[in-house]
Amino acid sequence: MTREEPESTFRALRHVKPRVRALAAYTLRPCEPRIKLNQNESPYDVPQTLKQRIQERLADRPWNRYPPFVSHNFIAAAAESAGWPAEGVLVANGSNELIQAILAVVVAPGVAVVIPEPTFTLYRLMSEVGGGDVVSVPLGEALRFDVDAIVRAARESRAAVVVLCTPNNPTGATLSREEIERIHDETDALILLDQAYVEFGGYDAIPLLRGRPRLIVLRTFSKAMAMAGLRAGYMLAAPELAAEVSKAKLPYNINFFTEVAAAEVLRARDELVAQIELIKEQRDCILRRLAKLPGLRVFPSEANFVLFRVEAPGLTHRAVFDRLLEEHGILVRDVSGYPMLDRCLRVNAGTPEETDAFLAAMAAILNRG
Amino acid sequence: MTREEPESTFRALRHVKPRVRALAAYTLRPCEPRIKLNQNESPYDVPQTLKQRIQERLADRPWNRYPPFVSHNFIAAAAESAGWPAEGVLVANGSNELIQAILAVVVAPGVAVVIPEPTFTLYRLMSEVGGGDVVSVPLGEALRFDVDAIVRAARESRAAVVVLCTPNNPTGATLSREEIERIHDETDALILLDQAYVEFGGYDAIPLLRGRPRLIVLRTFSKAMAMAGLRAGYMLAAPELAAEVSKAKLPYNINFFTEVAAAEVLRARDELVAQIELIKEQRDCILRRLAKLPGLRVFPSEANFVLFRVEAPGLTHRAVFDRLLEEHGILVRDVSGYPMLDRCLRVNAGTPEETDAFLAAMAAILNRG
Repeated sequence: MTREEPESTFRALRHVKPRVRALAAYTLRPCEPRIKLNQNESPYDVPQTLKQRIQERLADRPWNRYPPFVSHNFIAAAAESAGWPAEGVLVANGSNELIQAILAVVVAPGVAVVIPEPTFTLYRLMSEVGGGDVVSVPLGEALRFDVDAIVRAARESRAAVVVLCTPNNPTGATLSREEIERIHDETDALILLDQAYVEFGGYDAIPLLRGRPRLIVLRTFSKAMAMAGLRAGYMLAAPELAAEVSKAKLPYNINFFTEVAAAEVLRARDELVAQIELIKEQRDCILRRLAKLPGLRVFPSEANFVLFRVEAPGLTHRAVFDRLLEEHGILVRDVSGYPMLDRCLRVNAGTPEETDAFLAAMAAILNRG
Repeated sequence: MTREEPESTFRALRHVKPRVRALAAYTLRPCEPRIKLNQNESPYDVPQTLKQRIQERLADRPWNRYPPFVSHNFIAAAAESAGWPAEGVLVANGSNELIQAILAVVVAPGVAVVIPEPTFTLYRLMSEVGGGDVVSVPLGEALRFDVDAIVRAARESRAAVVVLCTPNNPTGATLSREEIERIHDETDALILLDQAYVEFGGYDAIPLLRGRPRLIVLRTFSKAMAMAGLRAGYMLAAPELAAEVSKAKLPYNINFFTEVAAAEVLRARDELVAQIELIKEQRDCILRRLAKLPGLRVFPSEANFVLFRVEAPGLTHRAVFDRLLEEHGILVRDVSGYPMLDRCLRVNAGTPEETDAFLAAMAAILNRG
């Protein structure tokens, strides 16, 4: 080959695994709506005083030095906030990274992972990447968890992991303390509890960790903690299990900004309580007022979002989505591609003004038919 | 089982893959030396004016919103700086994450990866995690790259990837333009060039990318860019290949701080030139003055560090390491566990004062015997 004829990309691409080439690259159409209610973010920014404290701590620190091998400061704040030993805390760039690491150390071909569905799609994706067998348990009546079916599936498949997102995304359903205990006690699996939305409702399972080394709790900064821009999350589990999961994580991968900001926001949680209450009020307001509109089925939710099905004759969910965006500048999430969620949209609670604008737009669209 | 008898951790841990349990957890003894010359960091912090610009951009941004799906701003700055299309740029939390992603989409059982060794250990680790066959090619005379042997090994093993760290860590050796071209042209493998240290010396391979879709270049912010605390790196390759590698990366995993800071520092590279020149002078000074001390073998280096072997009779490399730390408060890196690097230590260039302190300490230790 001479330099005059550039080599074709074929010779490079044939080294990529066929299974990878067959995957569609994950892309997202960028969109700048007037009101953004599609990613379950907090509508409130981090309080200005807290931002300032974080910025001052950044200025103090040498940026040319590696972050510590272990993010002591972040871990200590998470441990203190949860009342759980620091040795049982792992931190990461978003809880996605922890889901990936947990499943990486457990899932192999022939290993069963029980997942109630519909739910956050990463659990299935990462289980399949590991070659595991996903055992899907459909949600039950009104999209509530079917605890009997979950226990049965885990026992019959001898599952290594049961993944429970509570409150569940994108439906909003929760598991009670008794239900979590039952799934744990009646199975032999690791119970991975993703509690990204637990500040908004449902049972916070941290008190269950003691004496239950198969239980793993994930928490995030992206929702109630108003720091989606940070991409940080943490995991609480038995120290011995945390040590195993840490082997699937790259060292030094928490930058100093995340370490500083996460620790500060955890220590300032009290400053966020009022924001969280406002968001819960808006969610309840959406639940109440959407239920009064004709042609919608609204599902119960304890998260910061509401799932609803468009059942109005002659009106598709896609028409509602498009009109919200084009006529009102409001972006919600089309979740109709999830199993069981045909014709469904998801909207997260915004500020009172954003919530009002959304509800007024919905009333206009539905009453017009 | 009753709640009175807590469950043993055994039931949790037996779900972890045996291969993972067999790995030692990676730990590092924390140490706060007076002079830190062990991690090849820049001894100079980011200039104050640049820090301020970055902090102002952070204050402007809503922290409660997710970062963009793709880090446009960071990617655009990297593309502009390299003169390479944005579609061929991937960014990550450190180039480690890119090494992991590249090897994840290529390496499977039976796939050969050629690695000249000794080198950065992550290449081997990640190849083995994927079940690949590592074909190790020992460095040659004076720890220089043995290009003939690399080409031969890649051809004979029909390697999918050849990993070349140039300048090489922890030895400092480099490959010339002609050598890189030869390894590329005479093999059929992907050529992964880790150029973490290229600002300090050796051939910068970015101009070779055009017309060579099997070539991949990695760059980092941790060394010459004085931002080890940021944990950021980027990859340059053919857009088609970058699209495949991106499938192994989690979405949204660059936080807004990294996006803002990386873009700003790339655009302010000119402000760093003087620092980089100072570091190169210190490296040359270490090379020159260490070579004059008795009982040392000093290896040539074009990186920001110097490798040397302790050959003085009656003095072990460990004794030198310990005395540097305990008597002088200077931390260097013990790399004697690498293949071929028996009795070797690595020291990175510091400020002129740090370099002087190190050289004076070495003279005291070696002359005392």
